[in-house]
Amino acid sequence: MEQVKILSPATVANLVCGFDILGLALNEPHDIMSIRRIDAPEVEIKNLDSFGLPAEASKNVAGVALLAMMEKLDDGRGFEIAIEKKIMPGSGIGSSAASAAGAVVAANKLLGNIFSNEDLVQFAMNGEKLASGVKHADNIAPCIYGGITLIRSIHPLDIVSIAPPPLFVTIVHPQIEVRTSDARQILRKQILLKDAIRQWGNIGGLITGLMKGDYELIGRSLEDVIIEPVRSILIPAFNEVKFKCKEAGALGGGISGSGPSIFMLSTNEKTARNVEAAMIEVYTKEGIEFHTHVTTVNTEGVRVAN
Amino acid sequence: MEQVKILSPATVANLVCGFDILGLALNEPHDIMSIRRIDAPEVEIKNLDSFGLPAEASKNVAGVALLAMMEKLDDGRGFEIAIEKKIMPGSGIGSSAASAAGAVVAANKLLGNIFSNEDLVQFAMNGEKLASGVKHADNIAPCIYGGITLIRSIHPLDIVSIAPPPLFVTIVHPQIEVRTSDARQILRKQILLKDAIRQWGNIGGLITGLMKGDYELIGRSLEDVIIEPVRSILIPAFNEVKFKCKEAGALGGGISGSGPSIFMLSTNEKTARNVEAAMIEVYTKEGIEFHTHVTTVNTEGVRVAN
Repeated sequence: MEQVKILSPATVANLVCGFDILGLALNEPHDIMSIRRIDAPEVEIKNLDSFGLPAEASKNVAGVALLAMMEKLDDGRGFEIAIEKKIMPGSGIGSSAASAAGAVVAANKLLGNIFSNEDLVQFAMNGEKLASGVKHADNIAPCIYGGITLIRSIHPLDIVSIAPPPLFVTIVHPQIEVRTSDARQILRKQILLKDAIRQWGNIGGLITGLMKGDYELIGRSLEDVIIEPVRSILIPAFNEVKFKCKEAGALGGGISGSGPSIFMLSTNEKTARNVEAAMIEVYTKEGIEFHTHVTTVNTEGVRVAN
Repeated sequence: MEQVKILSPATVANLVCGFDILGLALNEPHDIMSIRRIDAPEVEIKNLDSFGLPAEASKNVAGVALLAMMEKLDDGRGFEIAIEKKIMPGSGIGSSAASAAGAVVAANKLLGNIFSNEDLVQFAMNGEKLASGVKHADNIAPCIYGGITLIRSIHPLDIVSIAPPPLFVTIVHPQIEVRTSDARQILRKQILLKDAIRQWGNIGGLITGLMKGDYELIGRSLEDVIIEPVRSILIPAFNEVKFKCKEAGALGGGISGSGPSIFMLSTNEKTARNVEAAMIEVYTKEGIEFHTHVTTVNTEGVRVAN
């Protein structure tokens, strides 16, 4: 294989109650990447979009992920990668994960799939470390595995796939900046045991609901008493958006990753469109620029482009 | 129906990582209860065992559960109940829950099942309040529903059944006293967010493992970084028992409820018996009196005796 072209999906981390452990892959938007091998032991990056991301490998999330893979590969050769990002950096729907995961999945296909998915997650987490200061896998894992993933443990890495029932996802990205590292810093280091108990009841409910295809249980379990009350302060009109979206029929939802995007789950496309209309109404009234997406769960993860 | 006789099972609350939210019903041991209606608006209790439990309804866990039901029933009549406890009070395998849940399930059968399982849980929780000072449902729910139950929320009450794969359970009850209220008091009110994240990863893993029938995932997820490190101090030789049981082939396990009993899960009876032998060896060496049980998951909950 001379060259591989892939689509790397956006992802929603946390899924409300599952902070740092749950994530979901989306069918839209996705980045487009083409990769080929080069003889020099380096990573050459061509940015085909206008986001102004660094082209220097050690400063680019896709670059550091590939460098980690090359260190393991140790064959004296490198990669040239062309990246056309469609997932806006800083939107909170796994833009950095899509770059890092997409790059290593594409490289692995070029190499004849010599690395396991777990290896790929390990390589790609170097990109997350560069982007946010923390090696987390809650966007990387669903980006690579598809569907919904549970990170049972990060040391040692233990990723579990959860097959969800059909779900529609509506995303709104209000155009404000929330840095992942800031969103992490405002969290309390200690939490109340009673809040933790409520949270783990919801995590249990969400996972059971997803596996049973019990939409009402999914809806009831989309509650976060620990992270959302703190982080939602950074997102304008968060409570109003949430209220209006549920009124429009959403099962529930909340902050996507560390924000500022908000996601909502629905059982059907019509409801998901009504939820989008509710989002549009709120942010139009607020006078804040925004983008929306209505999409479904991507069950495949990073895939080869036709 | 003149009289109903039921068997009310022992239960294991918490299941290691699921403090206050998970519970499992056992086929052995179980209490035996016979109930009939009486014309006086009161609860008459006959204790057929030698545990010396109070016969006064307002001081007996079965009594207060029935009184709560009678308040709702409001028909001017009462119950006479004969209780033969086989589940030793204070053993940590849901002795009080078996009394309270057994009494109200039996009464409901006598009444033609006019109350829902959720109503019965609400009535029975009054027994837990009397026994431990807290209205918790993590023993009551599996006792009534059977199998494994998740208490997603206690206010409002939201109980979810989780169907486990075949599992053998080995229990050892070292004859020391651990009061549920003391076991609650030594817990910290605040916990580290990073520990909570590890815990909810394990809860997610345990539930996914149970629903998928993935025994290895169940085993890896039976880890508690929050409650067990504190409570296990109250149980002699806890770490040694756990280590030896895993060495004997147990998937994993830990403190049953607030102790002092320890439970271990195995995939087959032979292993469960080897695990029992390991428990016997440790407590014989320690010179502590103990009982053991080797049993399976009770999928039915409280049931009518033949």
